[in-house]
Amino acid sequence: MGSDIEILINKISRLPGLGPRSARRIVLHLIKDTSKNLVPIISAINNVQANVKECSICGNIDTFVDFCEICSDKSRNKSVICIVEQVSDLWAFERTKCFFGNYHVLNGILSATHGSDPEELLLDKLIIRCKENNVNELIIALSATVEGQTTDQYIRSYIDQSGINLKITSLAHGIPVGGELDYLDDGTLLTAYNARK
Amino acid sequence: MGSDIEILINKISRLPGLGPRSARRIVLHLIKDTSKNLVPIISAINNVQANVKECSICGNIDTFVDFCEICSDKSRNKSVICIVEQVSDLWAFERTKCFFGNYHVLNGILSATHGSDPEELLLDKLIIRCKENNVNELIIALSATVEGQTTDQYIRSYIDQSGINLKITSLAHGIPVGGELDYLDDGTLLTAYNARK
Repeated sequence: MGSDIEILINKISRLPGLGPRSARRIVLHLIKDTSKNLVPIISAINNVQANVKECSICGNIDTFVDFCEICSDKSRNKSVICIVEQVSDLWAFERTKCFFGNYHVLNGILSATHGSDPEELLLDKLIIRCKENNVNELIIALSATVEGQTTDQYIRSYIDQSGINLKITSLAHGIPVGGELDYLDDGTLLTAYNARK
Repeated sequence: MGSDIEILINKISRLPGLGPRSARRIVLHLIKDTSKNLVPIISAINNVQANVKECSICGNIDTFVDFCEICSDKSRNKSVICIVEQVSDLWAFERTKCFFGNYHVLNGILSATHGSDPEELLLDKLIIRCKENNVNELIIALSATVEGQTTDQYIRSYIDQSGINLKITSLAHGIPVGGELDYLDDGTLLTAYNARK
C-alpha cells in the first residue's frame, strides 16, 4: 500500500462514524475507478470548500452571498425563532417541512465536563434579534439529555432576565412515533404519562 | 442547506457502508472547521488521484514509478504467488506480515449471477508469469463462499490444462481463531471436524 493511500485511509478513518476497516473500503472504492468515483467527489468537495460559509445571523452553514437561504427567505415567519444545538438539528427540522420560522444555532451546549462557555451560545445576539424583529415565540429545541435540559433552563432564565416579553416553548417529551411501550425506558414512559392529554 | 453541500452529501452517501445520515455527519464535520478537517482531506485525495496506479504485473494498487512496492521488492520470494480476489484481500494478507511471496489480484470472481468473465481474471498472464519466474507454488486464497470455491476449482483446472508443473494450495477451512464452538454454523464445524489433524 503506497504512503499516499495510507495517508488518505488514515484521514478518512478519523471521520465521525468511520474506522480503519470502513476507511479502507471507501478508499478502495474511490481508486478502483477514479474517473467515475474519485473525480466527482473531488469537484464536490472543492465546491463546498470554495462556497460554504456560516450565516452571521443564525449560525447556519450554507452556500450564499450575504445570509443563508433561510434568513434571506422573505416568505418565512421572522417572529418565531427556533433554537437548536447544531446545524444537523436545523437540517432535521427542515426535513419535517413543518416549521416556517427562523433559527438560532447555538453551536454548543452547556455541560459540566465538555461543554461550551455560556458566552459561546451567542444569546446576546439572539436577544438583539428578538427585539429588532419583534419576535413573539422562541422554541427551544434541544435534546432530552441532561446537557440539553440544563441549557434549556439557562436560556429561559437568560431571556427572562433580559426583560423582553415573549413566549418560550420547548419540544414535548413522550413516546416517539412508532415506539412500542414494551421497549421504552421508564423515564420516557413516566414523562409521557405525566404529560398525557 | 446549500446545493453544493447537498451534492457532496449525496456523493458521500453512495460510498460503500455509508448512507444519508452518516454522510450528513461527515460533511458537517468537514465544514465545521475547514482548515483543520477539510483541507488535509482534499490534499490527501489529490495526492492519491495524482499518484495511484494499478500494477501491470500483479494488479495491486499503489503509488509507484514502474511496478508496485511488492513486485519491485527484490527480497520477496518470486517463486510463490498468492491469488486473491481483490486488493483489500492483498492488504489483509500483508497485515499478517507472514507472507513474503508475490500476488496475483483477480479483480473479480466467477459467479452465476453477477460475476466476472473467466477472461477477466487474467489467468493467461499468471501462467506466463509462473513460467518466467519458475514459480513452484500457487496459493489460492479466496473466500469460503460458493463463488470463491467455484473460482478456486476453475483456476485449478485452468492451471492443470496449461501443463505447467507446480504445487497448488488453498487456504485451510476451520474454526476461526477466537471462535467459540457454540456459535459456529454447522458447515464450519463439520469442515473443521473432517479436516482435523
